[in-house]
Amino acid sequence: MEERLKQQLDFALLIDQEKNILRQTHLSGHGRRENDAEHAWHMAVMAYLLREYANEPVDISRVMLMCLIHDIVEIEAGDTYAYDEEAKKSQKEREDAAKEHIFSVLPEDQKTELAGIFEEFEAMETPESRFAHAMDNLQPLILNNSNDGGDWREHGVGADQVYGRQTMTRLGSETLFEVTDAIIKEHVRRGNLKAPAADSAEADKR
Amino acid sequence: MEERLKQQLDFALLIDQEKNILRQTHLSGHGRRENDAEHAWHMAVMAYLLREYANEPVDISRVMLMCLIHDIVEIEAGDTYAYDEEAKKSQKEREDAAKEHIFSVLPEDQKTELAGIFEEFEAMETPESRFAHAMDNLQPLILNNSNDGGDWREHGVGADQVYGRQTMTRLGSETLFEVTDAIIKEHVRRGNLKAPAADSAEADKR
Repeated sequence: MEERLKQQLDFALLIDQEKNILRQTHLSGHGRRENDAEHAWHMAVMAYLLREYANEPVDISRVMLMCLIHDIVEIEAGDTYAYDEEAKKSQKEREDAAKEHIFSVLPEDQKTELAGIFEEFEAMETPESRFAHAMDNLQPLILNNSNDGGDWREHGVGADQVYGRQTMTRLGSETLFEVTDAIIKEHVRRGNLKAPAADSAEADKR
Repeated sequence: MEERLKQQLDFALLIDQEKNILRQTHLSGHGRRENDAEHAWHMAVMAYLLREYANEPVDISRVMLMCLIHDIVEIEAGDTYAYDEEAKKSQKEREDAAKEHIFSVLPEDQKTELAGIFEEFEAMETPESRFAHAMDNLQPLILNNSNDGGDWREHGVGADQVYGRQTMTRLGSETLFEVTDAIIKEHVRRGNLKAPAADSAEADKR
């Protein structure tokens, strides 16, 4: 077998491990914890379905590819929970090291290409990366919403934290941020999310 | 929320159930059984990585989308093991009913679009569907190969059966069929796959 094809198949086998990286989100129906590969699959399908709501025109196949590979570095770097401030401090360093190592399994041209798509996602400077980030946030939100906000309750998450993260949804899609905003408000009302620090009149202005 | 967006989000939540549909393939490292969502994710990434080996030029974003949704009907119809001849008899009927029901959750235009992509995959009449089928076969093969053919041994599968299925890989990619062929021969040699009915000289000509 040619070396190039061997490298590609080695990479294909390596990324199988993404199925063992567990997230904090639980599947609908109060299911088990979700893993990175499932999350990426779900995001990619949702991106295609919801592409009409992107704030800017997007190359949807690039968005989908970005969704599919955006968490591959977690095979080595582990999942960092969106609301774990301590773990987030070392996240970039861990993920940069993993990125270099993992993508190096590929032939040089594909290493450059995939690492580039990963970096584009992280940088959030293109319409595609902004819409992919909107999916990265919306996907666990709809699962958590279906489970009565259990993931937030378990970690004592506050609405301020969720709004902080969901500013990225807004950059990708105003329409989907409106959905998000309604869901957050509903869960504050139900006591699943700690109310925003500001008074409710202030929060209503968001 | 507009009815259209509500339907789309209902569908996004419905397909979460694909993560609970278990296949017969086990993850690398002699891991647990794989589910449909993980399999679809893996196929889509592999399709992108290996697109240069498609027999014919393909619209890779269509291939990826096809990979991502090709098993959605199994939410209702269940997974049908490739070498379970009894279950395969009722497979089409079960999947057709599921297809109608599941895609009907979507707005009409997206129902038509996604059901069309699903049907295109099934019909295998386009270059995209042939390459997607090659991924559908190659992805479990590389996992099973990494696990010393355990999935074949568990089910007492014969090389003839695997060759029968892998004719679809060949239609999508001659190069990837060569890889497949070498893997099958190696597992026959190791006793993980029952030898072909024909004598070994005959088998070598394949």
